[in-house]
Amino acid sequence: MRFSRFAFLAALAAVAALAAPTAGAQAGATTNKVVLQVSDNDPAKWNLALNNARNIQTDLGEKNVEIEIVAYGPGIGMLKLDSPVANRVGEALGKGVKVVACENTMGNQKLAKAEMLGGISYVQAGVVELMQKQQQGWAYIRP
Amino acid sequence: MRFSRFAFLAALAAVAALAAPTAGAQAGATTNKVVLQVSDNDPAKWNLALNNARNIQTDLGEKNVEIEIVAYGPGIGMLKLDSPVANRVGEALGKGVKVVACENTMGNQKLAKAEMLGGISYVQAGVVELMQKQQQGWAYIRP
Amino acid sequence: MRFSRFAFLAALAAVAALAAPTAGAQAGATTNKVVLQVSDNDPAKWNLALNNARNIQTDLGEKNVEIEIVAYGPGIGMLKLDSPVANRVGEALGKGVKVVACENTMGNQKLAKAEMLGGISYVQAGVVELMQKQQQGWAYIRP
Repeated sequence: MRFSRFAFLAALAAVAALAAPTAGAQAGATTNKVVLQVSDNDPAKWNLALNNARNIQTDLGEKNVEIEIVAYGPGIGMLKLDSPVANRVGEALGKGVKVVACENTMGNQKLAKAEMLGGISYVQAGVVELMQKQQQGWAYIRP
Repeated sequence: MRFSRFAFLAALAAVAALAAPTAGAQAGATTNKVVLQVSDNDPAKWNLALNNARNIQTDLGEKNVEIEIVAYGPGIGMLKLDSPVANRVGEALGKGVKVVACENTMGNQKLAKAEMLGGISYVQAGVVELMQKQQQGWAYIRP
Repeated sequence: MRFSRFAFLAALAAVAALAAPTAGAQAGATTNKVVLQVSDNDPAKWNLALNNARNIQTDLGEKNVEIEIVAYGPGIGMLKLDSPVANRVGEALGKGVKVVACENTMGNQKLAKAEMLGGISYVQAGVVELMQKQQQGWAYIRP
């Protein structure tokens, strides 16, 4: 009888242990996380990406969503010191949006970090960041 | 002995209860659901999105796929009364494609619902719709 | 007593059987698989897609990632015999990138396979391929 109680509790524990990662994955899938791609040399697209980020925060509440903007390839100009949207990038950073530049692109264009906007982050390959975020359950938007 | 049978049944019930949401999530992931983004002020892109929807229905069968087209930002013109693709939007609606306009964009452009095509749906923020559909297991295509 | 041991083992087996597909789905979600969409009639975009594929292979290691490029609609020219990026498509194929043309688009443009680059693959509908790959856990990038 004691063993059968043990069997019951052990089975429940096994169920809980195996079910836990599933529950975690499902929680992850319903969390609001979105990565925005900027890969055009087009300030209108840069503004659209920033509008998208702002509208997502307004609609869901700033605390309820993680937003990351990744600029790479022809889109890298969005994050240079002379960017026409520099002020808006600063505002987005101030509201908790993560803004990421691609170091591969910077290497190709011989851009140093000193030539980029302050407060941004860096990844080796922007496209890999966009891929991996999706694989971690983030939604993907290409404005 | 009766308790051990109870243990067995209780454990199975616990397994079933915990496994059910997982099975549901997996079923969701393999269903054909796709959201198409329209965010360019470019009738060629509007036609491409409509071609994509039609080709998906032809290839998979109209009954076997859920398709939603979301127009926002510079793409909102696709769904105005004077849209050059108004007829094709009507055809898509007739074939069960859901077509959605972004009310944030309409507000920015001072567009009333009376100025939009009949039969379409509305969401507060098109970009949030695109994000949430992905988090619900829908594929995302940006033509 | 023997029955209670049976209860324990049966419950564990049930747990294992039900948990297995979940574990499989999670493993799939963390593998590096990415599908790149080419749907613009723009050689700059074709080069960007090829750069993206190369950067992903460099960053993650060629053996550690599956990459598929799908050309359809206005992007089909990337894979025609006279494509300005024909050499680079050949290099990508040589490095294990799968390159896929949309037969619906070829039909619309009256293109025969003899007019397309060697070594590429074909699907009936490029957009369905992009949708289904996402539903199989592949990340999606639209350069």
